[in-house]
Amino acid sequence: MMPTDRLSATFSALADPTRRAILARLALGETSVSELAMPFKMSGPAVSKHLKVLEHAGLIARSRAAQWRPCRLEAAALKPIDDWLGEYRRLWEERLDRLDDYLKTLQAKGGKRERKK
Amino acid sequence: MMPTDRLSATFSALADPTRRAILARLALGETSVSELAMPFKMSGPAVSKHLKVLEHAGLIARSRAAQWRPCRLEAAALKPIDDWLGEYRRLWEERLDRLDDYLKTLQAKGGKRERKK
Repeated sequence: MMPTDRLSATFSALADPTRRAILARLALGETSVSELAMPFKMSGPAVSKHLKVLEHAGLIARSRAAQWRPCRLEAAALKPIDDWLGEYRRLWEERLDRLDDYLKTLQAKGGKRERKK
Repeated sequence: MMPTDRLSATFSALADPTRRAILARLALGETSVSELAMPFKMSGPAVSKHLKVLEHAGLIARSRAAQWRPCRLEAAALKPIDDWLGEYRRLWEERLDRLDDYLKTLQAKGGKRERKK
């Protein structure tokens, strides 16, 4: 069952290591389905199913011009995920900063203890 | 069925608008499950199911100390997604830049034509 809203469809399409590997391959340049299938030891229909999910999410496009119908990455479809993450980036950065401060405090205390000996 | 690799589990957990709304609420501060459930007109078990998916992905944590077991956001669990996106950011930025250049070329041509009249 494919999600109906675009952001959910994109997240769902990325929730599979084979589909992410397909995108990584397409980041190097467009290619045919049979060439895409090669490293995965997968049947043609299995690869086609993954491509359909990626296509539904707008993450890849397939040319109708050439007979071999090459697939290409549509990286811009990842931008909405980046925008969504933006809201949370500040939160985890603050958290990592606090952890960093805490570790520095611990080190400073450790240093003082060393000097007291 | 929950995915087994961490990155897939995180993407899968985010592939639902209700779960993303829960995260947005928790970004404002920790809260109880019953308070979380309120705006969603959902049953307790339905909310618990969503929370379980988010917890499995490490996106939220539930305190065992307090009796009301508050939920809190673990924003740092989103960082691996940000890191994964990093590989593709260059690609969509290049693409947007090219589109921008193309539009400028079109405008420049249009301007020339205007001046010729």
